[in-house]
Amino acid sequence: MRIKITLMYDGSDFCGWQSQKNLDSVQTVLETALKKLTGEEVKVVGSGRTDAGVHAVGQTAHFDLTKQFPVRKIVTGMNFYLPPSIRVSSAEEVGESFHARKSVVRKTYMYRMYLADVDNPLKNLRALRVENADMRIFRENAAKFIGEKDFSAFMSSGSSAKTTVRTVYEATLREEDGEWRFYISANGFLYNMVRKIVGVLLAVAQGKRDASYIDELFSGGKAKEIAPPYALYLHHVEY
Amino acid sequence: MRIKITLMYDGSDFCGWQSQKNLDSVQTVLETALKKLTGEEVKVVGSGRTDAGVHAVGQTAHFDLTKQFPVRKIVTGMNFYLPPSIRVSSAEEVGESFHARKSVVRKTYMYRMYLADVDNPLKNLRALRVENADMRIFRENAAKFIGEKDFSAFMSSGSSAKTTVRTVYEATLREEDGEWRFYISANGFLYNMVRKIVGVLLAVAQGKRDASYIDELFSGGKAKEIAPPYALYLHHVEY
Repeated sequence: MRIKITLMYDGSDFCGWQSQKNLDSVQTVLETALKKLTGEEVKVVGSGRTDAGVHAVGQTAHFDLTKQFPVRKIVTGMNFYLPPSIRVSSAEEVGESFHARKSVVRKTYMYRMYLADVDNPLKNLRALRVENADMRIFRENAAKFIGEKDFSAFMSSGSSAKTTVRTVYEATLREEDGEWRFYISANGFLYNMVRKIVGVLLAVAQGKRDASYIDELFSGGKAKEIAPPYALYLHHVEY
Repeated sequence: MRIKITLMYDGSDFCGWQSQKNLDSVQTVLETALKKLTGEEVKVVGSGRTDAGVHAVGQTAHFDLTKQFPVRKIVTGMNFYLPPSIRVSSAEEVGESFHARKSVVRKTYMYRMYLADVDNPLKNLRALRVENADMRIFRENAAKFIGEKDFSAFMSSGSSAKTTVRTVYEATLREEDGEWRFYISANGFLYNMVRKIVGVLLAVAQGKRDASYIDELFSGGKAKEIAPPYALYLHHVEY
């Protein structure tokens, strides 16, 4: 039987989604909890990797169990064995054709920023403090990322992507709860794509780069700017 | 010269405002930073104590320096020596008649709650997860706390308050950023008063207590309920 789960985690506590030697990854922590819960050696497949420090409020994953297990006990059972920094918020049985990564139709990330002269300790490792940025300029230029485009300038090396073309459906800056939140939805994201886009948009909003820099990057080259991971949230995944 | 500062801190990192043996308190950490910055043994007077775990976004304090020190260098100077979990957001010179505690006219606390079946790891030690509560009932009954009243039922023992009469100016529940935030303003608060009020309002909202319980407490007795400290924020202090 195949189970789809939805997860939240505080990325500060993990080396990222993927297993790395001697470090706690989200994936290994989930697999350890499932082993304790079901007795089975389970492989958890995520919708995609998140880097060290990156948070999730709606990550998705699937795994297969060889024996029957009551689905209604997955959430409480896994949460019993998981550390508090990671929680399963829902679980459902899905068909064999469902694949947490391959079946993704649309993913949404959020990036949290706040304008201030001094760090807010309650936003440490949760949001990026920004100085001297005109967020209207950020908002105006965000629209340039919408559409089916080649995002190769916004990809860090180390990726095995077959194509660098992605379709961005939404790229919106919203003022929420006294801070700025950038929401970006696409059919898929290249390695570090959101952090590179935010880094470039901030450089433009701060006047460090001209707005034409974005157009230049779409014509070739590589964005040098990259925003830090700790303000990035995998917001939700649609199938 | 007397300096007034405004502070933010993550209460999870401290044993509270007041010095305790071998534990980091907000006050001792501030005094240590001031010693390093000015070379003086400075006593920092806060607007009031906050307990272990309680956060602040607008705590205020004052201290006296015997030698002249450029006020414009207080914020960056103190923040240089302070740990990241505490930040000075502003500093100004005030007259000798100003006293961070005695001159307070109005204080506002905020209490963060969210309704969910599962803990949100990104709200750990920041907000209280609440189940089976009707927040309309919370809101309606919050109004009962407004006015000049004897709040002795909402005070923990261990307080040296001369009178238990306080004037509550505002007690409002707001839906903000997908969670519930209770704002309460008064001319002063008794020991654990906000946590006791929130505890009682939640018990009523969850149907564990009848709304008449609040009236009974104002007629005598002691509230047994107390909400946990980690969702409480000293929001701002007015003079």
